[in-house]
Amino acid sequence: MKTVQEIADLVGGRVHGDGALEIQTVGSLERATHGTLAYAEGKHLAMVGSTEASCVLIPDIELPARTVIVVAKPRVAFARAAQWLLPPRLPAAGVHETALVASDVTLGANVSIGAWSIVEPGASIGPGTVIFPGGYVGAGATVGADCILYPRVVLYPGTTVGDRVILHAGVVIGSDGFGFVFDGERQIKVPQVGRAQVGDDVEIGANACIDRGALDETIIADGVKIDNLCHLGHNVRIGDHSVISAQTGIAGSSTVGREAVIGGQVGIADYCRVDDHGIVGAQCGIPSRKRVPAGQPFWGTPARPLKDIKKQRGYIHRLPRMANEIARLRAELDALKAKLDE
Amino acid sequence: MKTVQEIADLVGGRVHGDGALEIQTVGSLERATHGTLAYAEGKHLAMVGSTEASCVLIPDIELPARTVIVVAKPRVAFARAAQWLLPPRLPAAGVHETALVASDVTLGANVSIGAWSIVEPGASIGPGTVIFPGGYVGAGATVGADCILYPRVVLYPGTTVGDRVILHAGVVIGSDGFGFVFDGERQIKVPQVGRAQVGDDVEIGANACIDRGALDETIIADGVKIDNLCHLGHNVRIGDHSVISAQTGIAGSSTVGREAVIGGQVGIADYCRVDDHGIVGAQCGIPSRKRVPAGQPFWGTPARPLKDIKKQRGYIHRLPRMANEIARLRAELDALKAKLDE
Amino acid sequence: MKTVQEIADLVGGRVHGDGALEIQTVGSLERATHGTLAYAEGKHLAMVGSTEASCVLIPDIELPARTVIVVAKPRVAFARAAQWLLPPRLPAAGVHETALVASDVTLGANVSIGAWSIVEPGASIGPGTVIFPGGYVGAGATVGADCILYPRVVLYPGTTVGDRVILHAGVVIGSDGFGFVFDGERQIKVPQVGRAQVGDDVEIGANACIDRGALDETIIADGVKIDNLCHLGHNVRIGDHSVISAQTGIAGSSTVGREAVIGGQVGIADYCRVDDHGIVGAQCGIPSRKRVPAGQPFWGTPARPLKDIKKQRGYIHRLPRMANEIARLRAELDALKAKLDE
Repeated sequence: MKTVQEIADLVGGRVHGDGALEIQTVGSLERATHGTLAYAEGKHLAMVGSTEASCVLIPDIELPARTVIVVAKPRVAFARAAQWLLPPRLPAAGVHETALVASDVTLGANVSIGAWSIVEPGASIGPGTVIFPGGYVGAGATVGADCILYPRVVLYPGTTVGDRVILHAGVVIGSDGFGFVFDGERQIKVPQVGRAQVGDDVEIGANACIDRGALDETIIADGVKIDNLCHLGHNVRIGDHSVISAQTGIAGSSTVGREAVIGGQVGIADYCRVDDHGIVGAQCGIPSRKRVPAGQPFWGTPARPLKDIKKQRGYIHRLPRMANEIARLRAELDALKAKLDE
Repeated sequence: MKTVQEIADLVGGRVHGDGALEIQTVGSLERATHGTLAYAEGKHLAMVGSTEASCVLIPDIELPARTVIVVAKPRVAFARAAQWLLPPRLPAAGVHETALVASDVTLGANVSIGAWSIVEPGASIGPGTVIFPGGYVGAGATVGADCILYPRVVLYPGTTVGDRVILHAGVVIGSDGFGFVFDGERQIKVPQVGRAQVGDDVEIGANACIDRGALDETIIADGVKIDNLCHLGHNVRIGDHSVISAQTGIAGSSTVGREAVIGGQVGIADYCRVDDHGIVGAQCGIPSRKRVPAGQPFWGTPARPLKDIKKQRGYIHRLPRMANEIARLRAELDALKAKLDE
Repeated sequence: MKTVQEIADLVGGRVHGDGALEIQTVGSLERATHGTLAYAEGKHLAMVGSTEASCVLIPDIELPARTVIVVAKPRVAFARAAQWLLPPRLPAAGVHETALVASDVTLGANVSIGAWSIVEPGASIGPGTVIFPGGYVGAGATVGADCILYPRVVLYPGTTVGDRVILHAGVVIGSDGFGFVFDGERQIKVPQVGRAQVGDDVEIGANACIDRGALDETIIADGVKIDNLCHLGHNVRIGDHSVISAQTGIAGSSTVGREAVIGGQVGIADYCRVDDHGIVGAQCGIPSRKRVPAGQPFWGTPARPLKDIKKQRGYIHRLPRMANEIARLRAELDALKAKLDE
């Protein structure tokens, strides 16, 4: 529990109203009750007067007759305040008696390793990291400080994970890339001898899969957020602070720059490049070896600038009119010719 | 083992032939053998005379010279009879000695909790429910009666699951939604403090992922069936008895009404609405904030009524002819002008 | 560690240079160092002179002034050599003390069964097979010889797996197919009483899901390679040595012939057929009951021969010019008519 004033101090905002009000939780404007912090931007500002929230984070507008905190970016401030008010409830530090931790493993201070977890030889787990039950940390893998590995995460041998990383249930990192060569009779497996490397402050959604590099590394840079059920192939590289929505697949050796935004169910074939700040719309398909520059959103399969796609769709919508006009031209021209032949 | 007459009584059908024949199993018309129950509808009725099945469920047609059960909906009756003849083989009741069940957990009668399962504090498990090995039921989660959780299901804290729910291996329910806000330098995590709520008679396929609400609830209503590897984002709501095929993704805050049918690999962006009885074809893409009304199937990306898509495709197929006709018009018009200029 | 000559003998190649050089590992031309074997084909042959690799596998070209092995198919030879040089590091044989193996299970010689694995009654595990921690082998399931099941693989009861099969972390095989029939009020589950059958030399990627047959079998034939997060529905059949890329879904009762190549994120609806050697491009959608013949790649949704799609796209790109030409024809024709009316 914090006071409105304490929250204002945290987010660098200015209290208007009662700074001593106590805040227990966060909520939406519609469903907030006493003790709740909410936020409002844009059209939702109309609800600031009627919400039952005890305090609302708002931008610098005409002040309403209620307790608010005025702040430049209410949604960002809300996220910060919510993190502070409602830290995730995590298991206590300690290694569960059933966990199997190899004797040479380096464990930082205050690690929590849940029941039936395995940490194989040569691995290391940084201070403050929590591994929920059923985690598997392969030989030589390293996990940094203050990470959370939810139940049943699997890290293949040699995987490296930075600090403050969140891996949701069922995530698999470092699995074999999909590399085969057909010898005329059968597919021969190309050994996958690289590694997967995950930076700091990364979050990866449930049951997502990241393959390790074939010969070199698969790299997820700092601050990258990857949603549920995504697939990243071998040698993929994702730049700092990029965001990848659910069920997107990125095939081998493709790279995504920093601060790029990739929609859901996008398919990026192999050896592609999405530039820094590139924007790829949901369900896009990017064919092999193509590049997506920044500056405008791409959409469709094969992906093209959204404005080109829209222009093309406009022409397609005109097709019935075009067909009619062609028929009219034909009739008029035939009539004219008949008349001249008379 | 049941007799033909017993099965007819169960499904409300009428025996023609030998009601005392014994039925052990169910099968397809093509591969059925002695002791097998099959069913036939439509064109498959031609096989009723030749199948080796001991009994066939058929609609009210001219009766063949063999043992059949006449019933209004043979496929529905077959499903019911098969459930009765072949109940799933489930582990015996009891809590495995290796399972970790917190001391304050409420366990119903005849629950079965498999090896290396965890039921965290404050959780409750209804009577007759089976948790296969490796299940994880988070703090405060509730599972109703007569559910089956196949191996390695993960329920995050606070998740609620109704009665007679089937969750296949690797299902994750209640994971964090994908909520971040960019502060200009990095993505700030928006705490996900809602819950996921699953109704009665729901079935969810292997490795599917359902995120919990950001502030409120993600809701899967009664009777919903969700196939393998689907993704449902935070605050999604699915109405009663809707069916969602494999690998479909539904982004945050979208709603699907009751008795809707969603094909495989569909992508529904955020804040969309599929109405009650809506039909969305496979691989459809529904852009943000769009609505799919009922009454006709939708298809394509962006999704539109199937008949509009078909009409448009018809025009696109006519393009070569249109181009030719334009070229002919040009030639004829030029010839005419030349002639008139003479 | 092997010598260049030993590797040449293995792959059937011819040494040019120093056959006694020692090779420890494999790598890419760009990043290879001393002791590394690389390979070069096509445009990469330009790098053979400058790589620091100790030996390069090359095709029969003009010989460079360095140690190489000349071989018909360098990439195939590289895969073979890499398998030999870098066998996967696997756990030692033995059944971990925490594993629960039913008393009637048949275990081959030298099996390795990891911690907290379960092998249910009636199952059998072939010689040399490794089950990583947390594996679940259901009742009556059989796993052949020399397989690798990475952590947390789940085989439902009755599943059969051939020899030398690799199943990555989180794979689920034999889950219930998605079979329901609507009785007017609710979806009735159609019991799924078939099996899933996986041939020899199959590899299946992380978190992929294969449902068992409804009444009969789901069949993955020998040598098939399936990438991460794929979904195969009930009664699907995949022919020998076919390759299916990540996140592809194949719905119930569809068949894929032998040596077919299916791209990533492909959706194949139910009752389809991809012929032997068929090629289906990434993100293709194949509607229900359609057939993809061999001989040319298919692409798009609905999938059609790539050359038809390209031709159609060409016409669509011409639309602006067509519209302009129609407008010109209109103007000229109107002018002509006006002139004649004078």
